[in-house]
Amino acid sequence: MTTKLNAQWIVGFVDGEGCFGLDVHIHKQMKYSLQLQPEFTVVQNERDIQILHALKDYFKCGSVSVNRKDETGTRYMYRVKNLQHLIEIILPFFEKHSLKTKKGIEFKRFREICLLMGNKKHLESLEGFLDIVKKGEDLRERTRPNTSTKRKKVNEILEKLKEQTIFQVVREESKV
Amino acid sequence: MTTKLNAQWIVGFVDGEGCFGLDVHIHKQMKYSLQLQPEFTVVQNERDIQILHALKDYFKCGSVSVNRKDETGTRYMYRVKNLQHLIEIILPFFEKHSLKTKKGIEFKRFREICLLMGNKKHLESLEGFLDIVKKGEDLRERTRPNTSTKRKKVNEILEKLKEQTIFQVVREESKV
Repeated sequence: MTTKLNAQWIVGFVDGEGCFGLDVHIHKQMKYSLQLQPEFTVVQNERDIQILHALKDYFKCGSVSVNRKDETGTRYMYRVKNLQHLIEIILPFFEKHSLKTKKGIEFKRFREICLLMGNKKHLESLEGFLDIVKKGEDLRERTRPNTSTKRKKVNEILEKLKEQTIFQVVREESKV
Repeated sequence: MTTKLNAQWIVGFVDGEGCFGLDVHIHKQMKYSLQLQPEFTVVQNERDIQILHALKDYFKCGSVSVNRKDETGTRYMYRVKNLQHLIEIILPFFEKHSLKTKKGIEFKRFREICLLMGNKKHLESLEGFLDIVKKGEDLRERTRPNTSTKRKKVNEILEKLKEQTIFQVVREESKV
């Protein structure tokens, strides 16, 4: 039996447990070798996996998968990362049903990122791409620095891209 | 301006962030030197303290106070621990508006504890007292053992109380 959810319950639950984020990861085939992946996620212990399936049923998009396993058990994640689903389903839902905690501010920043990417701003220019990366870094009010090896490699690529934009500015200024 | 909450939002938020617990602490003036304190709590980072005040406004009971300070900031807690308020306000709310995660099971166990204490079962006999302590320990599905010094002292007292009930059984059996 699937748990039936209602909109206000979902808003309350997401105010507590939801996350709006921008994942940046290495993808050699992509422009700038990095993929920008906005995602809406809710993570729960396995004992409440049925709630994640109920969210999937409600929004009719996204997927449920293992998030992390450790000594306290397995944690599962409901995730929507398809940009079209984010723009057409998730954004309108939280525009209609306002979040009540400070997560509402995160949502507004996340919305901006999705809409910029919907308008392909990350593909039009390096500046547009780096602007979205910056917005992703500013998304959450408190973020612990990500010190993983993967993230270090992403940061190395980003530093090189930023240098390119500086060189570009210098080149353009030298033309004047 | 106070945030206005609605019932379903509260259920969703409590499904994510709420806690139903039984605190057991040393109180020399109480029977058995221990106080049993059922409590409904919601903890939030200081950035969302207004939500805790909104819960207090909604339920018209409980209090908001500092929960914990550390390098990530100050965390605040909305707490209802007055037994009458729990029985007359908090229990009926969650009886009417069902929790959807496994926290609903915790709530049922918590409800039982509150009603037993409302009927003074913890004062009538040592068995009644220890039965409630046991129900408190079983409240949460996953609980990390509390290894604090305070808890060790509570456990020492509990062990002595349990020995008393064994002696009592032995005494009663020896009468037969």
